[in-house]
Amino acid sequence: MPDESGYAMVILVTGGAGFIGSHIVDRMLSLGHHVIAYDNLSTGREEFLIEARRNPLFKLVKGDILDAVALQQVMSGVEFVFHLAANADVRFGTQNPKRDLEQNTLGTFNVLEAMRISGVKKIAFSSTGSIYGEAAVIPTPENAPFPVQTSLYGASKLGGEGLIAAFCEGFEFRSWIFRFVSILGERYTHGHVFDFYHQLRDHPEHLKVLGNGRQKKSYLYVQDCVDAICIAIQKAQEKVNIFNLGTNEFIEVNDSIGSMTEYLKLSPVMEYSGGDRGWIGDNPFIFLETSKIRALGWSPQKTIRQGIEKTIQYLESNPFLFERADRDSFLQVNSSHQKRQCTGEVR
Amino acid sequence: MPDESGYAMVILVTGGAGFIGSHIVDRMLSLGHHVIAYDNLSTGREEFLIEARRNPLFKLVKGDILDAVALQQVMSGVEFVFHLAANADVRFGTQNPKRDLEQNTLGTFNVLEAMRISGVKKIAFSSTGSIYGEAAVIPTPENAPFPVQTSLYGASKLGGEGLIAAFCEGFEFRSWIFRFVSILGERYTHGHVFDFYHQLRDHPEHLKVLGNGRQKKSYLYVQDCVDAICIAIQKAQEKVNIFNLGTNEFIEVNDSIGSMTEYLKLSPVMEYSGGDRGWIGDNPFIFLETSKIRALGWSPQKTIRQGIEKTIQYLESNPFLFERADRDSFLQVNSSHQKRQCTGEVR
Repeated sequence: MPDESGYAMVILVTGGAGFIGSHIVDRMLSLGHHVIAYDNLSTGREEFLIEARRNPLFKLVKGDILDAVALQQVMSGVEFVFHLAANADVRFGTQNPKRDLEQNTLGTFNVLEAMRISGVKKIAFSSTGSIYGEAAVIPTPENAPFPVQTSLYGASKLGGEGLIAAFCEGFEFRSWIFRFVSILGERYTHGHVFDFYHQLRDHPEHLKVLGNGRQKKSYLYVQDCVDAICIAIQKAQEKVNIFNLGTNEFIEVNDSIGSMTEYLKLSPVMEYSGGDRGWIGDNPFIFLETSKIRALGWSPQKTIRQGIEKTIQYLESNPFLFERADRDSFLQVNSSHQKRQCTGEVR
Repeated sequence: MPDESGYAMVILVTGGAGFIGSHIVDRMLSLGHHVIAYDNLSTGREEFLIEARRNPLFKLVKGDILDAVALQQVMSGVEFVFHLAANADVRFGTQNPKRDLEQNTLGTFNVLEAMRISGVKKIAFSSTGSIYGEAAVIPTPENAPFPVQTSLYGASKLGGEGLIAAFCEGFEFRSWIFRFVSILGERYTHGHVFDFYHQLRDHPEHLKVLGNGRQKKSYLYVQDCVDAICIAIQKAQEKVNIFNLGTNEFIEVNDSIGSMTEYLKLSPVMEYSGGDRGWIGDNPFIFLETSKIRALGWSPQKTIRQGIEKTIQYLESNPFLFERADRDSFLQVNSSHQKRQCTGEVR
């Protein structure tokens, strides 16, 4: 909530048609703000904005964060930016090394430059717990020892964070940077739980798991995530405000599968690819220290298990999500598709 | 020294005509390696390679790290890369926010991609102590608390470091990352000591100083720096090897001015711009913990004062350096000049 005084701001949400972005859009509209969602609809879904579009304070602008000119146009009159547009999947960096850099570092630079040129000075940014690499300290606090990156995704978000902090110092911006664990809930469209549900939907008797299933992960329910973001923006007023967001729990991949199969009343045969990492750069243990955000009065309302169940309920009710997922997994063998998605440049 | 067994490697030095790069070139040639210097000569100087060019094992390729195609061509047959090409001046980030990102983050990505495509897997990288921002711990160790960036320069080097580490994890590269204090010595062409000497050369009676002169800085003599790099590459064999390089001393800007004026036998009137930072993002205290590199048997042979004196001797003997500096400071008012230098893209 950029402002609780009742003053209606003009808020830009990049990635506003995406999983978390569309929830930010809804929340900001519910608070009476004018909201512009800026999204290239590559992974965002217009379906997520059906409610928002009924609100006259809402506008969807179809555009790419790699299009610096369009970004500058949409920034006119904006007072606060939620920058959530990103390549959000940590797994495929090595298949397309340029994508994370373009979407997450250069895209963030374009957003910052468009803000600077337009005199917009406040930005909230979705970073990631992957930025800690294989953390030396677990649970990992925001001021953990200087990490060594293990994924192109983490590296690209680190690049984005660095740029934001430098713009705060150099151009008197103020920023709120959120390092998320994996987020679950309504409109969730990628990640472990999505992939597992997708498999079980197609063949309930068989489940393939990357790694040995012993990787420890944290999840946070999306409404808890949006609550935390709002509270931090209200209450934290440093130049650069960095917060881990997660629950006080972690869960083994096998246990999250157990929650799912129990809920779905399935007993699939498990097939593990083996090893303690699901993919190159997979982190076998992500668990973030969240006392900093908790000190502001926030605490999550849903457990990991509840988050998983709400996610499954949502996926069950929204089969349309799998149409695109099926198409994308078909297209993933066609590398020219990926190239078409990633031809941005710094302009 | 990539190899001490006597095996002559093919070594690429990006920025090989630059201050530190040309010293790396000379050192590698002296060890019997084949050396390709790749440099766009924007700040590098062919004069620094006069000795190298007499050696049949040496080749200069004029090219830009933002030219991914040329980089891939030059990478053919290379076995080890020293990636030193960069925008190395921390001060002007806010005047041209894109330059650091392009030269230091995207340029590094291009080098890494050219290496990946050509099967080259070993890289040494010149990072910076500026990456620690305003460090919470001084002297600052390599595993200091996760820093907040205060300059676009630091942010861009952080982005480069992250990419290198991610390529090590994702593509089995090995890297040696060096976080330098300011380097001094022969072929030094930018920074405090250069600027002060340049001023005193033009008007010995008057010296303008950015900030209050109380900023504490560290310096390292360039041959000590090259020694440290060689020892680290020989002895450190982690996947990602990160080393601070500096002396066990720091010095106030005023004291380094004192060393200079004493050596030059001048007593200029001082004019301070004031404040504890010389420019936006200036760090009032840089002092790096160097016990990690010292544990490998390295120690600097020159004090800061000796480094400053050797630098002044060099600058006195090489007035040609000031011809370009004079021209550049004239051209700096012409922003189209800067734009021409920075129109790279990720290809």
